[in-house]
Amino acid sequence: MRVMLRVAYDGTNYCGWQIQPNAVTVEGELDKALSDLFKEDIHVIGASRTDSGVHALGNVAVFDTATRIPAEKICMALNARLPEDIVVQSSVQVEEDFHPRKCVSEKTYEYKILCRRIPLPSYRFHTHFLRTCPDVDKMRHAAECLVGEYDFKGFCSIKTQAESTVRTIYSIDVLEERLPEEGTLITIRVTGNGFLYNMVRIIAGTLIEAGFNKRTSDTIKQAIETGERTLAGPTAPAKGLTLVEIRYAKD
Amino acid sequence: MRVMLRVAYDGTNYCGWQIQPNAVTVEGELDKALSDLFKEDIHVIGASRTDSGVHALGNVAVFDTATRIPAEKICMALNARLPEDIVVQSSVQVEEDFHPRKCVSEKTYEYKILCRRIPLPSYRFHTHFLRTCPDVDKMRHAAECLVGEYDFKGFCSIKTQAESTVRTIYSIDVLEERLPEEGTLITIRVTGNGFLYNMVRIIAGTLIEAGFNKRTSDTIKQAIETGERTLAGPTAPAKGLTLVEIRYAKD
Repeated sequence: MRVMLRVAYDGTNYCGWQIQPNAVTVEGELDKALSDLFKEDIHVIGASRTDSGVHALGNVAVFDTATRIPAEKICMALNARLPEDIVVQSSVQVEEDFHPRKCVSEKTYEYKILCRRIPLPSYRFHTHFLRTCPDVDKMRHAAECLVGEYDFKGFCSIKTQAESTVRTIYSIDVLEERLPEEGTLITIRVTGNGFLYNMVRIIAGTLIEAGFNKRTSDTIKQAIETGERTLAGPTAPAKGLTLVEIRYAKD
Repeated sequence: MRVMLRVAYDGTNYCGWQIQPNAVTVEGELDKALSDLFKEDIHVIGASRTDSGVHALGNVAVFDTATRIPAEKICMALNARLPEDIVVQSSVQVEEDFHPRKCVSEKTYEYKILCRRIPLPSYRFHTHFLRTCPDVDKMRHAAECLVGEYDFKGFCSIKTQAESTVRTIYSIDVLEERLPEEGTLITIRVTGNGFLYNMVRIIAGTLIEAGFNKRTSDTIKQAIETGERTLAGPTAPAKGLTLVEIRYAKD
C-alpha cells in the first residue's frame, strides 16, 4: 500500500529535507526509521524539499510498503524511532498513483520576524531578528502586487530547476503581534499553488525592504514583469521560514 | 560601581544558573564574559539560581566593576561576548548595597504545558508535553488554595536550605490558548515574594494532577497545613519553567 505522512520538524539541525551523502537530512532520517520499522528498504517521496534550517509543521512524504500494520498506526510506531525534532503528525493510506509533487496542491508557508531592541534566546531558531520594526502597512501594500498568477522568475534562486516559473499566489497576509516581553512578532503568511526555489524567502526579503522604504511597489511590479532577480529583495534567512501546510485537491 | 543585569536565557544547554566545576552554567558564562570584557576578575551575584533546563526572560545578576564604560552600554558589549542562548536585556547602575537576593522583591514564573495528541518539535524545549488536556477550571480552583501567606514546607524539595519555608503567593493564573496547529497551550503564571527550591515545579505538578482529578483541594490544603511533601503533587519537568520577571521595591 501507499502511505502518506504529514511531518513536522525543527530544521535547525538538518541539512534540509533532501537526502545527501555525509549529511543529516529529514528525508534520510525518515528513510532510516521506516526501513528499520518495516525491515524493508524504503525511500520516501517528499512534497517539499525544504532548505537547510527551514522548519515544517506539515510537510508531506509518501512511501510504499508491504506491511500489514494499519496505515494510521504507523505514525506512532515511527515517532518512537525518530529523533525528537522530527515528529510525524499523521499517517494515512492513499491511492497507489498519489504523488505528493505531481498532484495539484495548495501550500501555506509562514515567515516569522522578531523586531526588538535586543534578541530573545527562545526565538533564535524560528525567527529572523531585526533591531527595528518595518512598517507593516507598507509591507501589506507591497504584498498586494504579488498576489495572482505571475511569472515569478525574478523571485527565485538561479538554482531553480523548474520547467515553468509561473505560479499563483492566492494570498499574502502580514500579521503583527505585540509580545508581552516587549517587541513585535511579524508573520508573513503566504498561500499559493506552488513555490520556486527560495521564492518565499525572497518574497519575505522583498516585503521587509518595502517596510523600510527601500523598495517600492513599482520596483516589485517591474521585478515581476521583467523577471529581473536584482529588482526583488534579498533572500531572507532560512530559520524564519516554516512550511505550515500542504492541501491536496482530494483531501 | 555596582551594576545590575537583566538576563534572558534558554536553559536547555546549561547545568542551571549556579557555577560549578566541570559544568557549563549561566553564571559561569556571565563571569567569563564580564571578566574578559573588563580585564578584571568578576563574579556575579544572581537573584535566582534556576535549575538545569529552566529558562529565564528576566533573571537578575549584580557585580562590581572599576570600569568607566557607562552602565547602560555594558549590555551590548557583553552580548557580543556571550553565546546566542544567553542575552542580557539591560544593564543599569544600582546602589552599592543592592543585593539581588536580600532586597525585597516580587517574582513571576510561568510554567507551560503543551496538550496535544502528538508532540510539536518547536515546543520541545519550552513546554511540558501531555497527551491529554487537564481540566483548566479544576486547576484554577486548586490554585486558589495556594494563594496567600503559607508555610510551603510541603511544596519544596528536601534539598531546600532556606531558613524559613513561609512564602506569600500573590496570584496564580491558569491561562488556556488553543493553537492554530491544533492542541492547547496551558500557562500557569505564579507571582510571589519568593519561592523555595522546586516550589513552582511542585505547584505545577500539583495543579496538573488536580486537573486530572488525581488531587483534591482538600489534599492540597492538608499539604499546606501538615507540610507533608507526599500530599503535594510531583515535581513537573524543568523545561516547562521560565523565570519571567523579578521586580524590586526600588524599581
